[in-house]
Amino acid sequence: MCDEIAHAEDELVELLRALVALDTTTHAVGDPPRQEAELQEVLAERLRSRGADVRIWEPEPELVAGHPMVPDGFTFAGRPQLTARFPGSGGGRTLLLNGHIDVVSVEPLERWEHPPFAAVVADGLVHGRGACDMKGGVASMVFAAETLARLGIGLAGDLIVNTVSEEESTGAGGLVTARTLWADAAIVPEPSGLDVWVTCRGSLLPTIIVDGRAGHAGIPQRPWEQGGAVNAIEKMGLVLKAIARLREHWAGLPSHPYLSPGDCVPTMVSGGEWIVSYPASCRLDCHIEYLPEQADEHGWGSRVEREFTDWIVGKTASDPWLAAHPPRVEWLVGGVPPSEVPIDHPIVTTALGATLAVGRESTLGGLDNWHDGATLTVEAGIPAICLGPGDVRLAHTAEESVPIADLVGCAQAIAVTAMRFCA
Amino acid sequence: MCDEIAHAEDELVELLRALVALDTTTHAVGDPPRQEAELQEVLAERLRSRGADVRIWEPEPELVAGHPMVPDGFTFAGRPQLTARFPGSGGGRTLLLNGHIDVVSVEPLERWEHPPFAAVVADGLVHGRGACDMKGGVASMVFAAETLARLGIGLAGDLIVNTVSEEESTGAGGLVTARTLWADAAIVPEPSGLDVWVTCRGSLLPTIIVDGRAGHAGIPQRPWEQGGAVNAIEKMGLVLKAIARLREHWAGLPSHPYLSPGDCVPTMVSGGEWIVSYPASCRLDCHIEYLPEQADEHGWGSRVEREFTDWIVGKTASDPWLAAHPPRVEWLVGGVPPSEVPIDHPIVTTALGATLAVGRESTLGGLDNWHDGATLTVEAGIPAICLGPGDVRLAHTAEESVPIADLVGCAQAIAVTAMRFCA
Repeated sequence: MCDEIAHAEDELVELLRALVALDTTTHAVGDPPRQEAELQEVLAERLRSRGADVRIWEPEPELVAGHPMVPDGFTFAGRPQLTARFPGSGGGRTLLLNGHIDVVSVEPLERWEHPPFAAVVADGLVHGRGACDMKGGVASMVFAAETLARLGIGLAGDLIVNTVSEEESTGAGGLVTARTLWADAAIVPEPSGLDVWVTCRGSLLPTIIVDGRAGHAGIPQRPWEQGGAVNAIEKMGLVLKAIARLREHWAGLPSHPYLSPGDCVPTMVSGGEWIVSYPASCRLDCHIEYLPEQADEHGWGSRVEREFTDWIVGKTASDPWLAAHPPRVEWLVGGVPPSEVPIDHPIVTTALGATLAVGRESTLGGLDNWHDGATLTVEAGIPAICLGPGDVRLAHTAEESVPIADLVGCAQAIAVTAMRFCA
Repeated sequence: MCDEIAHAEDELVELLRALVALDTTTHAVGDPPRQEAELQEVLAERLRSRGADVRIWEPEPELVAGHPMVPDGFTFAGRPQLTARFPGSGGGRTLLLNGHIDVVSVEPLERWEHPPFAAVVADGLVHGRGACDMKGGVASMVFAAETLARLGIGLAGDLIVNTVSEEESTGAGGLVTARTLWADAAIVPEPSGLDVWVTCRGSLLPTIIVDGRAGHAGIPQRPWEQGGAVNAIEKMGLVLKAIARLREHWAGLPSHPYLSPGDCVPTMVSGGEWIVSYPASCRLDCHIEYLPEQADEHGWGSRVEREFTDWIVGKTASDPWLAAHPPRVEWLVGGVPPSEVPIDHPIVTTALGATLAVGRESTLGGLDNWHDGATLTVEAGIPAICLGPGDVRLAHTAEESVPIADLVGCAQAIAVTAMRFCA
């Protein structure tokens, strides 16, 4: 079976090239769809011809509405989700292969040596947007399932191929999977370099609002206790210091074997109303990453939210104005949960064994930021690992590419995992 | 003559009420005019009927275009300037009475106890937008000139009444005066509480741009020397510190007898491109006030500009990233110059004597921020002082008002000054 896949390397590469050529750039709510439906049809036709029960559908927005990850007004219009089930003979475990078909923007376009949708093959690599994140993984997992079917290798459990949109935006595609499918485990072939990633950090997106008090910038101000103006931008400087100290605090906690410490990055700031007035308000958006052990009892970030708010308010309270007018922390944009699969879970041990069987020296690891697998693990209780082709450090860059050897190795490892896990 | 003015108090109050009732709210370039032309016509008719040579005109924009205070696209369309000259008999000094007719916005409207255009009279005060800044001063100076003419008090020199727009926006109205009129001295009845203000600070509006380097906020970054992301917002925090130290430095310089020290207030900030990316750029607008002795040899702010840039770059250079990528300081918005009239100048001594003659214990002073008088002093060499009714701390507020006693006292003091200065 592994030889079959190796011999069909050209076909696997052509599948990936066809996927890269279709523009499935991620979108904001309200943007028109691109070629998502076309791409799903390409996969559907292939999988149907190999005997899968294929469903392509645009889920009702109500299925995901109100979830913290999903913004108001979100719909799947023009962006169908695909599920292809290869039914087992019965009595075996079900394995879900999940990958996202959306990619991030190719801008700035001038930075690309190889045109991002041309899928140029050179030096053993396929170049282009999505090559490793994660049309490469999608091609490998589809090819693995097809090969098993083509060779008539019967499994006791079901093998499900599931391709979704929205991973690079809201995560709503993976959420549909979590709410409509069930499996004993899942493989999400994000670009792990064929390592087995068992964990990822969760993230939160706080907005901090600091109030000042307006006044004419050209006139000396009385102390604020006597009604004088207060500079909200300068007070935000104290919040930035508090954030830097929180980062140090989190970095000093016991380290995680596979993940970086919790982190908080100020990402956007805006403040002030007029160029000759004391700014009455300043707003700072931040991006928090936190570890699985920081999560609350539901696996989400409510504990981190409380810790963050208390820290910001507490560490700035030595400033009398901020003690009397504490910074307000709001959680306007939904976060995503961290995830962790026990390293003795059968999907982990089976996948690790499979990579060794196909000649890769894979190790356990984690991804420092969220992916759809976390939704499957946390929301649906489907333990999801990553095992995919390529180097994640090239994801979202103008140098994105994937080694053809990784594509082949990933398809082999997934096929072997399926044979053993669903046996 | 002073008794005449005191007896006509009601007429003076009604003049001010008529001016307040006309909406002459200041504007950005491109906004349509309001009732500026109507107000100037009210004054023109009164002054013409008292024998003045009156000119109302919309100056060509070319007259002021290119000046650092005047933005591109500026015009006087719909906002005429007024000059009314009472010719002297010859051989005397010319006195210019200059006031601006524009007022700042009345928003937020709900804060006003008295409707801002109703000019409510209560408790010896006239309430409303412009009551003290500076339709009160305009009413007093017009009334002073009218009374001198009505009583047939002949002056040797010319007495010029000049009302302009644009003081609250660009200063272009005062600039037209500086470029088209000449006088031996000027009185600008800004709300000095009938003190004699001989000086004001100049201002500058720097924009500081700090570069960072973009990167995914969810992924730990290498050191910047190895290509890692750099947070432009956090680097701007170091700039804020440098500004705070510059303020302390300026506050420690020898004090000015009538003005507050130089100052720098950060007024607006914006930074970051996306909520999950390290911010690649952050921009900070500031408002600088500086003392006359900080001005360059032309009376403007080039020395302060150099000092500010050197300070920001120098004080942040202990940060290796900022040493390699220094903050950029740009001067996109034109500043205004400081001004100082020698306290032994005849207009100062005459005005001070006049206030004493009308029963006010006036003192010398200064205004911490710019007014049109600075343009007259610096650009035209016309020494300009302020001597006007009301409390400047109420200017631009929803509590703006002017004491009727100040209106009368100002008209009297200006009339006496004119009699003595133009004798």
